[in-house]
Amino acid sequence: MTAGIVGLGLMGGSLGLALRGVPEIDRILGHDHNPDHGEEALKLGLVDEVVDWERLQQESDVIFLAVPVEGIIKALQNLTAIKPACTVIDLGSTKAKIVESIPPAIRKNVVAAHPMTGTEKFGPSAALPNLYRDKIVVLCDLEQSGELQRETARALFRAIGMKIVTMDAREHDRHAAYISHLPHAISYALANAVMSQEDAKNIVILAAGGFRDMSRLAKSSPLMWEDVFKQNRDNLLEAMDCFEEELRVCRALVKGEKWEELRDWMESAQKLYDIL
Amino acid sequence: MTAGIVGLGLMGGSLGLALRGVPEIDRILGHDHNPDHGEEALKLGLVDEVVDWERLQQESDVIFLAVPVEGIIKALQNLTAIKPACTVIDLGSTKAKIVESIPPAIRKNVVAAHPMTGTEKFGPSAALPNLYRDKIVVLCDLEQSGELQRETARALFRAIGMKIVTMDAREHDRHAAYISHLPHAISYALANAVMSQEDAKNIVILAAGGFRDMSRLAKSSPLMWEDVFKQNRDNLLEAMDCFEEELRVCRALVKGEKWEELRDWMESAQKLYDIL
Repeated sequence: MTAGIVGLGLMGGSLGLALRGVPEIDRILGHDHNPDHGEEALKLGLVDEVVDWERLQQESDVIFLAVPVEGIIKALQNLTAIKPACTVIDLGSTKAKIVESIPPAIRKNVVAAHPMTGTEKFGPSAALPNLYRDKIVVLCDLEQSGELQRETARALFRAIGMKIVTMDAREHDRHAAYISHLPHAISYALANAVMSQEDAKNIVILAAGGFRDMSRLAKSSPLMWEDVFKQNRDNLLEAMDCFEEELRVCRALVKGEKWEELRDWMESAQKLYDIL
Repeated sequence: MTAGIVGLGLMGGSLGLALRGVPEIDRILGHDHNPDHGEEALKLGLVDEVVDWERLQQESDVIFLAVPVEGIIKALQNLTAIKPACTVIDLGSTKAKIVESIPPAIRKNVVAAHPMTGTEKFGPSAALPNLYRDKIVVLCDLEQSGELQRETARALFRAIGMKIVTMDAREHDRHAAYISHLPHAISYALANAVMSQEDAKNIVILAAGGFRDMSRLAKSSPLMWEDVFKQNRDNLLEAMDCFEEELRVCRALVKGEKWEELRDWMESAQKLYDIL
């Protein structure tokens, strides 16, 4: 089977490395609109060959779309020359708008997936061989994909060590707003709040693990996250409302010096760890 | 030299383990208001002996206060029987109120310190031998400590592998509000926001590294953090204002669909990493 990967950054590059260990895959083609990324991916051995859009479509049995989510929607409109049985798997962090955008002619070819993994780094050099191993992948609106394509996607994700969860695309987007998109917004805001201080440098010198963890996500690609926020706007705004309300509770308790209630509020947060 | 450690949890217990490698220390005494903690600390080899308040004062050449910050203020008022040259080192996460509270009779004995390290775990079993190694310790208002005590503190922190930074106590508290106390408030708020959702369990199942990192601090001891928020209330409120303002900027850009400006805002956050 020939695999084609569109987008040779962190997600696509890591997938190339992971697919090398899958016996069913005998060739990995790559495509990237940035020629430097293509060259770098070849040098790093992430793919076997970098090809143009036409060859990618003609020769791939499975195509992974690993570009920012607005780019995924554009790519889907341009998949006009794929093999009839081709499985197209998008790896976007949002799902509802992507699923809605799939042209009817290739609806059965496409499987909408969100691998719950990543790092704050990006570009081909960020690729890691075990990025997907033991992680969850959410497959959305699977009943709209063809049977062959469903089975191909399941088999490949299992082969690279992932656990499969299925979900409605809208439900996925609501969950993702809370556990992924909101934390990114918070991390960018925290980094900007510290940077707005006159003595930002002195503050950061003192940073221990807590601050480093909380601000790590703010290193993530703005290009990628601009798209995610755009496509999941309404859910993100709702999650931000909910978070801001909690922060207001905390603020009011601190301001009003209600220390016992503050402790209760902190203790309720710890319940998270009964399930995490 | 005999060291006494008050509070045998994460910070005090880890200190006991670290001091075992310091040739100048030939005995480590421990004290904890919780008898179970004392027993556990002995079993884990964190200290050589658990003693009462009187013996701790009479026998220790250096006393570390590793209890929540309100407890530190209480302990300082009760240090009425220490050796004349004793060095008392408090390890609290806030500094201004602690420094103000030191009784004049023992002002020269006390060195106010904040080791910039920790984990979200607590209690004797959370102790780690290398918690302090290669980390920064901030020493505050050092000119008010006696020369012998300054030198003893510096030598011991260096001996356990720490880098020393000196600072005004008020300046420390302002910095700590941004890099430590605000991130804890945010983490508790994020955990509570997710837990307030009907399908919290399903959301958390999907949690990848980002959410785990962002919510890890919410596991921290509410007892300890209630005290910190109490003592650094004004700085924390100011830092929360600053953070909320950044979040409002983000919210307005998302709501107003100003995607290019949103990307600029995200890019400005990345400048943090030129200095971190």
